[in-house]
Amino acid sequence: MKHLLSTADLTRDQAVNVLDTAKQLAAATTQGLGKLPPLRGRTVVNLFYEDSTRTRISFEAAAKRLSADVINFSAKGSSVSKGESLKDTALTLEAMGADAVVIRHPSSGAPHRLAHAGWISGAVVNAGDGTHEHPTQALLDAYTMRQNLRDGEGDLEGVKVTIVGDVLHSRVARSNVILLQTLGAEVTLVAPPTLLPIGVDTWGCEVSYNLDECLEEADAVMMLRVQRERMNASFFPTTHEYSNRYGLNVARMNRMPAGGIVMHPGPMNRGMEISADVADSKRSVIVEQVANGVSVRMAVLYLMLGGTEMGE
Amino acid sequence: MKHLLSTADLTRDQAVNVLDTAKQLAAATTQGLGKLPPLRGRTVVNLFYEDSTRTRISFEAAAKRLSADVINFSAKGSSVSKGESLKDTALTLEAMGADAVVIRHPSSGAPHRLAHAGWISGAVVNAGDGTHEHPTQALLDAYTMRQNLRDGEGDLEGVKVTIVGDVLHSRVARSNVILLQTLGAEVTLVAPPTLLPIGVDTWGCEVSYNLDECLEEADAVMMLRVQRERMNASFFPTTHEYSNRYGLNVARMNRMPAGGIVMHPGPMNRGMEISADVADSKRSVIVEQVANGVSVRMAVLYLMLGGTEMGE
Amino acid sequence: MKHLLSTADLTRDQAVNVLDTAKQLAAATTQGLGKLPPLRGRTVVNLFYEDSTRTRISFEAAAKRLSADVINFSAKGSSVSKGESLKDTALTLEAMGADAVVIRHPSSGAPHRLAHAGWISGAVVNAGDGTHEHPTQALLDAYTMRQNLRDGEGDLEGVKVTIVGDVLHSRVARSNVILLQTLGAEVTLVAPPTLLPIGVDTWGCEVSYNLDECLEEADAVMMLRVQRERMNASFFPTTHEYSNRYGLNVARMNRMPAGGIVMHPGPMNRGMEISADVADSKRSVIVEQVANGVSVRMAVLYLMLGGTEMGE
Repeated sequence: MKHLLSTADLTRDQAVNVLDTAKQLAAATTQGLGKLPPLRGRTVVNLFYEDSTRTRISFEAAAKRLSADVINFSAKGSSVSKGESLKDTALTLEAMGADAVVIRHPSSGAPHRLAHAGWISGAVVNAGDGTHEHPTQALLDAYTMRQNLRDGEGDLEGVKVTIVGDVLHSRVARSNVILLQTLGAEVTLVAPPTLLPIGVDTWGCEVSYNLDECLEEADAVMMLRVQRERMNASFFPTTHEYSNRYGLNVARMNRMPAGGIVMHPGPMNRGMEISADVADSKRSVIVEQVANGVSVRMAVLYLMLGGTEMGE
Repeated sequence: MKHLLSTADLTRDQAVNVLDTAKQLAAATTQGLGKLPPLRGRTVVNLFYEDSTRTRISFEAAAKRLSADVINFSAKGSSVSKGESLKDTALTLEAMGADAVVIRHPSSGAPHRLAHAGWISGAVVNAGDGTHEHPTQALLDAYTMRQNLRDGEGDLEGVKVTIVGDVLHSRVARSNVILLQTLGAEVTLVAPPTLLPIGVDTWGCEVSYNLDECLEEADAVMMLRVQRERMNASFFPTTHEYSNRYGLNVARMNRMPAGGIVMHPGPMNRGMEISADVADSKRSVIVEQVANGVSVRMAVLYLMLGGTEMGE
Repeated sequence: MKHLLSTADLTRDQAVNVLDTAKQLAAATTQGLGKLPPLRGRTVVNLFYEDSTRTRISFEAAAKRLSADVINFSAKGSSVSKGESLKDTALTLEAMGADAVVIRHPSSGAPHRLAHAGWISGAVVNAGDGTHEHPTQALLDAYTMRQNLRDGEGDLEGVKVTIVGDVLHSRVARSNVILLQTLGAEVTLVAPPTLLPIGVDTWGCEVSYNLDECLEEADAVMMLRVQRERMNASFFPTTHEYSNRYGLNVARMNRMPAGGIVMHPGPMNRGMEISADVADSKRSVIVEQVANGVSVRMAVLYLMLGGTEMGE
């Protein structure tokens, strides 16, 4: 694995290997003193063109637990804000010896360009690009499902996942759909018609406008974050109506099968797409997702920088 | 010591133990290479909802000297600014494996809630909450007094401390009054009537509106910072008049007893609550306070994370 | 070397020693695991009163490769923005145990004041002060010239360097002129008359208004960044005209002698002072400059904190 740009780059074996590695690293971290040596002397740069403290500190914690040095490069207030191109920023990071660049960017495709334009020799991890992908989020979600639904082993063959909300703008949904299918899961997308992308019928998922019909068989229900800034853009009528039709409350949650889990990539709008009691219920694995995020990101950095046999 | 939320949580023995530990750690740091191993592999998160570079880097330096990893989480530009609740931020930090969370928050009581709501298992240190408390500031002040007035041993029995300025809004004053009384010191508060809290007569301190009357016996005079933003709010007439009546100048300082010290939590308004020559005089221990801040914060983190016998 | 405030402080032997040390450290870093032990337990503070992510992370990478702890202190949103003086910030950093302070400041002379006012005992590195100096930039430029033009050995005796652009406001130009002359190089300055400082005739350089006349013999051409914010200030007519007369394009570059190199301190305005194809050409050593920046800053920190025999 040279880069991690899209979940589409991963075969089922590669994806399972990431999850297995994450599991081993999580165990090693818990048993030991919290810090492992494999990336000592390596430098990981967090190159963030959008604010995302949660994702940034998850990667930072992952890199530091592997003993890497971490340099945070926020585009705000930097040469980037004076108009420096991605190319020149990349050449700078390369020259400074970055072994891996973790990039969050508002433009879909920026990580791909960073990885393949010949500017840098280090590894590139896509930490979210526009409405395109967020592969480590999908990996941590798969890890969480595997832990809860498959005893932490193998793939997700036959697992039924319902993803609910703004699929149109969600890189989390996009990455999840691809990876879940690679791992053998069956995905149902639920959203108002205005929040589904054109061509969603070619994604290989079930599609529904009705959440109530899609809960009885869902091993996992993944609620997407409502972007409040999209509300005025007439994608949906009112917060209240959205919550009524597409929010997950206890009554709805109770129709899920025994052992079914509730997921959310965070940060949540409690009372909007998910009610507070659902978020805090026994079915909720939302906090686990965050913890697994660190393990999965450790695995990705370890596999990319530790020198193993995965192709890109 | 599980958390450090308020100086009121500390018995005299516990407080003296913090000061003794700080003294030992300061000595060990000076003798060695500047870095001690006890918190290797532990993660300290600085969760700052208000800007405070001074306090943040003091905790950062303290944690790093004990070999902990430090992650800075500024609420600005983070999921917090998108409306994430303290609860969800806390669950995130917990999931990421934070061993200690150092929190600065504009709301009084936020650290208490963080520590006791069941969201996190790690230690919580209050780094200043609203107008409530700032316990590590009080500890470093006590440490500084003990070094200068009690040969660095024991408690502060019988030490006379005069605290001057905006007691009403000052978490520094509040924490100091409590801790100083626990350690046996006698406190006099000096302020204009508008800057004294209702019920100050129950605090067990002397109260005066007249600085000139409160200097002859003061072993330590602690000047509080004037918040310029409060000046328009009619708490006091003019800068000039405030300075005239409540500022510490050389003439006033010279009325202090031999060996008496001048303190300020910083940052100072030179020429306002304290004149430049007083700030730089031999009696001033203001720079020492900053240095002692690192030692005291090392002690707090060490006692909380190092597994010793103090109760909360 | 106690401080590094100005290139004028360096004798030829001292400057060559910095370059030799940088070369050794670069080799040691490449051979080993990327991390060297000499500054373990030492604390380097990046005190930045202006945004400069590139310079900040270069110093941060340099310090971390030598195993120092790094604390970033941005003046924005700190006590500084509440009016704290440089003096009190300095006293704070001193008290916190800063072994070195790397300062970027909008006022010429601020680093000198920080070093010599008696506020701190640690080393001070000028990382750019107003229009005055940026000595580590000049050192990395000299290092880059020496690598490309002198086989990485000795000084720059007889090397011909043409510096082009806004000399008037450029601390990079100022530091380069001094250091290049110390090292024996011959410098030509090229700029429109409005962008040359009064008294430039005393600098000991050739001065020209005509770029085309100054290329045939240039071993190195150093293009300065156009500060777009200066354009409205009538220092020069239009972007287009500036680019036409003082921009480096391929036609001009081709008139340089064989082996001649093109330099730029970054960030570039591609298409303005330098064309994209020149920036990416074989003659361009701009990316090398960035890499050498880390090595040179390692050398400076090492020589200042590692305890060697150079005087200030």
